[in-house]
Amino acid sequence: MSYPGPVEYDQGAPAVRAVYDDIMHTRQVDDVNNFWKFIANHLPTLARTWHSLKDIMAPGALDPLVKELLYVAVSVTNNCAYCVASHTAAARRAGMTDEMFGELLAVVGMANETNRLAVGYRVPIDPAFE
Amino acid sequence: MSYPGPVEYDQGAPAVRAVYDDIMHTRQVDDVNNFWKFIANHLPTLARTWHSLKDIMAPGALDPLVKELLYVAVSVTNNCAYCVASHTAAARRAGMTDEMFGELLAVVGMANETNRLAVGYRVPIDPAFE
Amino acid sequence: MSYPGPVEYDQGAPAVRAVYDDIMHTRQVDDVNNFWKFIANHLPTLARTWHSLKDIMAPGALDPLVKELLYVAVSVTNNCAYCVASHTAAARRAGMTDEMFGELLAVVGMANETNRLAVGYRVPIDPAFE
Amino acid sequence: MSYPGPVEYDQGAPAVRAVYDDIMHTRQVDDVNNFWKFIANHLPTLARTWHSLKDIMAPGALDPLVKELLYVAVSVTNNCAYCVASHTAAARRAGMTDEMFGELLAVVGMANETNRLAVGYRVPIDPAFE
Amino acid sequence: MSYPGPVEYDQGAPAVRAVYDDIMHTRQVDDVNNFWKFIANHLPTLARTWHSLKDIMAPGALDPLVKELLYVAVSVTNNCAYCVASHTAAARRAGMTDEMFGELLAVVGMANETNRLAVGYRVPIDPAFE
Amino acid sequence: MSYPGPVEYDQGAPAVRAVYDDIMHTRQVDDVNNFWKFIANHLPTLARTWHSLKDIMAPGALDPLVKELLYVAVSVTNNCAYCVASHTAAARRAGMTDEMFGELLAVVGMANETNRLAVGYRVPIDPAFE
Repeated sequence: MSYPGPVEYDQGAPAVRAVYDDIMHTRQVDDVNNFWKFIANHLPTLARTWHSLKDIMAPGALDPLVKELLYVAVSVTNNCAYCVASHTAAARRAGMTDEMFGELLAVVGMANETNRLAVGYRVPIDPAFE
Repeated sequence: MSYPGPVEYDQGAPAVRAVYDDIMHTRQVDDVNNFWKFIANHLPTLARTWHSLKDIMAPGALDPLVKELLYVAVSVTNNCAYCVASHTAAARRAGMTDEMFGELLAVVGMANETNRLAVGYRVPIDPAFE
Repeated sequence: MSYPGPVEYDQGAPAVRAVYDDIMHTRQVDDVNNFWKFIANHLPTLARTWHSLKDIMAPGALDPLVKELLYVAVSVTNNCAYCVASHTAAARRAGMTDEMFGELLAVVGMANETNRLAVGYRVPIDPAFE
Repeated sequence: MSYPGPVEYDQGAPAVRAVYDDIMHTRQVDDVNNFWKFIANHLPTLARTWHSLKDIMAPGALDPLVKELLYVAVSVTNNCAYCVASHTAAARRAGMTDEMFGELLAVVGMANETNRLAVGYRVPIDPAFE
Repeated sequence: MSYPGPVEYDQGAPAVRAVYDDIMHTRQVDDVNNFWKFIANHLPTLARTWHSLKDIMAPGALDPLVKELLYVAVSVTNNCAYCVASHTAAARRAGMTDEMFGELLAVVGMANETNRLAVGYRVPIDPAFE
Repeated sequence: MSYPGPVEYDQGAPAVRAVYDDIMHTRQVDDVNNFWKFIANHLPTLARTWHSLKDIMAPGALDPLVKELLYVAVSVTNNCAYCVASHTAAARRAGMTDEMFGELLAVVGMANETNRLAVGYRVPIDPAFE
């Protein structure tokens, strides 16, 4: 068959299970979502992506809610349906309210508009911004 | 000449000056940046864009710093050089530290990567996300 | 050398010159613009691109001005600086006024905004549109 | 629930109904399409988007058909399925024929191709275009 | 009806059938896939697209497998579901293994990440690359 | 200052120098290019990006030249000028000829065109591709 399906926990090699276990433990969930089960078809991608994501999304100078909002902003801009759904859910878990969601999409929409106005009018960068 | 240049304050019609005055007053600055001077070539665009932006970027459920971070995230994803420069400057004024900037770009980079992994592996949306 | 430079008329092979001649004759100009001189580094690309473009941009059900406006709309959305500059110039030659240019960019900006709102709110297609 | 559903007319607050009424009156239709029902979850977005769109898409230097063609061009370039469906329908209502639609997509396809050739060959902007 | 459906072989004008015959003969298949049946609604687009694609994807300095991998890389980056499915299938037929597919998506993901880091940090081009 | 500049070797903390040393050793070069010097402003990003890239771009089922061609294809599609310049140079070092470069850009251009035709005609995925 031409397209790889999900790698369920029971089918996974020990190295796959180890990543799944770490995801479930870190996130305090009973199962990993489809994203991980599909990229598990390439073990180096599974392991690297999880370790990178775990590190990047951890609390730091920006808190986890802000990081999830940023993730949604990028995913909406790129029109990634899976990513919009999964990261909106994650943002909800991190505390995003309905009002925050409305404002988030308003900013994302406006930024996409003004980005094109800046390009279309060929606006030169102000010296003050350099 | 084929391309419109900046509309400086002294050249602007009264309706243009009124928008510039409101921008300068709202932001407590002495001049408007190039973006406004170029889109001022089309008055309806100048007026509508300013009124929309003023409304959207005001403090609400999300604070101004978070909104500027979101703006940078979209602008980087769209590769808009002017927008990256101007909204990074705005985020700095709103309190973005070097560490926040580093984490912001790390999230934006990672989101752009996993967006493509989700598309490439054709990951179906989990029922739990619907 | 790592990057190919422009292929000037005098340097071009006969097949390159033949394409340049047809461009200059069709457009009634004395020289071809840089786009053609650079893609001339790969003759099949030069010939195919010119023949496709000549065919697609010819008057048809849509007139040349509308086609150039569409070209600018795509180029702005993709943030292609060269393409924005060259097709804005072409639209000017085809009759685009300052007011048309202002309205064009307003539509392009708005479309980029509502595209993201539709994605962010995951709006299902109305049965009436199918 | 994690994702907001459509706000039907009967469920809407008076301010939502007022926007819906204006959309139905302006467009001479019996119901608003899903786009409006979903963004109605954030009233400021609903009101601002409608007022901006009503203004931008009104007849001006460019006629409504051309504006809808531009909207489709942007929506196809951004790969927004909802927007392609809804604005193709709007373009049909504004007079787009099958032949116009075919030429529209031909231009959009070609523009996306030559945009990348210009970037890949790093073509410098001709002095004549500045 | 507002949207054109597929043009099946039996419905096609002779010029459409001639293109379909050439596709089936060139690829040694019994039917053409949906892409061709839909773009056949505009004969010039069908003919030009097939002749361009046949030329571009033929063996040359790059072999057909590499060309299909490049096609998948672009399609994933653009988030075109149809294109990802069809060109992944084509790459499989040209010899892409599971391991190659995994590495392909890893490169595509990483390139999308570092593209944004380069933009976000506004990295100037090294003189050595010019 | 609003924007971070390059972190030169002499200015770098020991952890930064260790990454630079590994890059220079792995690539057999005397200095690291600007990309690394700018992302070095955020050490976790520098370290993670290098380790990921080193792993992903190593010879595997796909050889280094093919991987660099894929990187260029993504970078051109995303319109990242820095990335196009740096990865074209890398592809040259890995053996890309002028003819390969011409074919690469031809495929990238064509894929960007047909991606939009597939979206614009709303082509459904063939059952054979599922």
